[in-house]
Amino acid sequence: MGEKVYVGVDLGGTSIKVGLCDINGKLLHTYEGPTGTEHGADVVLENIASYVRKLISDTSYDWEQVAGIGAGIAGFMDIPEGFIKLSPNLGWRNVPVKKILEEKLGKTVKIDNDANVAALGEAWSGAGAGIPNLVCYTLGTGVGGGIIIGGKIYQGFKGMAGELGHMRLVPDLEAIQCGCGMNGCLETVSSATGIIRMAKEAVERGEHTSLALVEGIMAKDVFDAAKSGDDVAQRIVNRAASYLGKSMAMVSVILNPQRYIIGGGVSKAGDILFDAIRHYFHEYAQETASEGVDIVPATLGNDAGVVGAAGLNLHS
Amino acid sequence: MGEKVYVGVDLGGTSIKVGLCDINGKLLHTYEGPTGTEHGADVVLENIASYVRKLISDTSYDWEQVAGIGAGIAGFMDIPEGFIKLSPNLGWRNVPVKKILEEKLGKTVKIDNDANVAALGEAWSGAGAGIPNLVCYTLGTGVGGGIIIGGKIYQGFKGMAGELGHMRLVPDLEAIQCGCGMNGCLETVSSATGIIRMAKEAVERGEHTSLALVEGIMAKDVFDAAKSGDDVAQRIVNRAASYLGKSMAMVSVILNPQRYIIGGGVSKAGDILFDAIRHYFHEYAQETASEGVDIVPATLGNDAGVVGAAGLNLHS
Repeated sequence: MGEKVYVGVDLGGTSIKVGLCDINGKLLHTYEGPTGTEHGADVVLENIASYVRKLISDTSYDWEQVAGIGAGIAGFMDIPEGFIKLSPNLGWRNVPVKKILEEKLGKTVKIDNDANVAALGEAWSGAGAGIPNLVCYTLGTGVGGGIIIGGKIYQGFKGMAGELGHMRLVPDLEAIQCGCGMNGCLETVSSATGIIRMAKEAVERGEHTSLALVEGIMAKDVFDAAKSGDDVAQRIVNRAASYLGKSMAMVSVILNPQRYIIGGGVSKAGDILFDAIRHYFHEYAQETASEGVDIVPATLGNDAGVVGAAGLNLHS
Repeated sequence: MGEKVYVGVDLGGTSIKVGLCDINGKLLHTYEGPTGTEHGADVVLENIASYVRKLISDTSYDWEQVAGIGAGIAGFMDIPEGFIKLSPNLGWRNVPVKKILEEKLGKTVKIDNDANVAALGEAWSGAGAGIPNLVCYTLGTGVGGGIIIGGKIYQGFKGMAGELGHMRLVPDLEAIQCGCGMNGCLETVSSATGIIRMAKEAVERGEHTSLALVEGIMAKDVFDAAKSGDDVAQRIVNRAASYLGKSMAMVSVILNPQRYIIGGGVSKAGDILFDAIRHYFHEYAQETASEGVDIVPATLGNDAGVVGAAGLNLHS
């Protein structure tokens, strides 16, 4: 019946991406279609099933070779049960994803949250291949995290491990409230949202910066301005990087991972961000806990989600 | 040949305690003798070997039933190699403990650091029995830590996981230098040393406290004064507890363990300490990461070290 292959599903609010991987995490083929969020969970799950069937029929692989299907979803969930408790961006409450997809597709289905799945993708065949213990940050609208221990996603007691964006690192006097309700979370500063907020505040304060001329500032504008030597933009980038470096210094005395991988849209800023994170990490970290530890960009880009989801049936 | 038994060695600067455990971590018998630190590593290792032989000969178990020997040692070490790099309290540098003890005793020997071993003891048959993922704090001269994942000690890349005393949580303006060279480490505040320092500083500042009458203040004096309603002592206990609670809130969004276990001399303070730690933990922690999580005292007391050391051959 040929080699086994693994299907990953990256379920986003606007599109669903499905991908087929071999046993080494090599992405063989992908397919993408609209989510249909507005039509409700039943339609979305039927869309997933049809995209997965289409994915396989587009290749020379047989359906029998599919050894398992995994899905990465943003939201709160019961991972062992495969049950979505709440997914704000899909508008879902209490959807038994695993059960429904297993009925539709006749294959084992596993689900996990999007940040964990991206971490597993990078650990399997991306920037962390061959490194058993690593920690992955995903810098986007928020700051997501995934902890890989022994090549597997570490979930913790109630699946809350790796919520790195909610490390409360910002001192009280400078802290603002996070979407989670607490103050001073890492993601209030080091996410795209945090970077944009700091830039807008600087402009509103009348600081001398080229960002004052930009309509609808994006995180990329801040990095571009910093690269061009804009002092205010450089200060904002340094602040975002300093809390990432501090958080890694903290994680290092707790978990002492071998590698930190940073992915997500913000990570595309490149050296200006990574050099600053490395600087602050080594400034704050205990020497023995940071010795030989590296901080590297994710390499799978937008494919990390499908690859990691495909890996759920092998590495969880 | 009968059931298998496991030997644990708790190697301290002044005395060596050895213990025999059954396969469930039940402590069957112990023996204790002087370390002989002043005579050097060769004599200390020979003492260990003779105490272990004595331990077994004092019981009805046969030497053949001993399935493995473990030792907990304070210091920096290469755990897989069983090699002590530096142990300040023993005055050792580069001592191949595993190799020498295996030659002397003809059994498999594993070593680990004292805080990890205490955590494993509590996880095996103490306050964490049956809980797969937990984090253990040992409050003594410093603040030690041990991370248990899947019932085993989690070491990290270079054995630096669980160095919880070196989480830098104290804000810069209030931070003092730690023995490790960094500023603001948890153990500068929440260890016996930290509590004594804060008490002495309060007395020196002339604050109104019953501790002014105590010669050679110990941590116990501070807790006793706090229990008697001394405001200054209560403030010091709260400060020590608040950083412990904060550190657990931080660990919870990273690892989401099911239970925190607190051992070591300071933990004997009881409810006055634990109630305050729980209060601050729930004040700082993300709700979902702290849901159902408990904070409990260690139950093995001074036996945690020998029990955990005995467990190294079963759970590592």
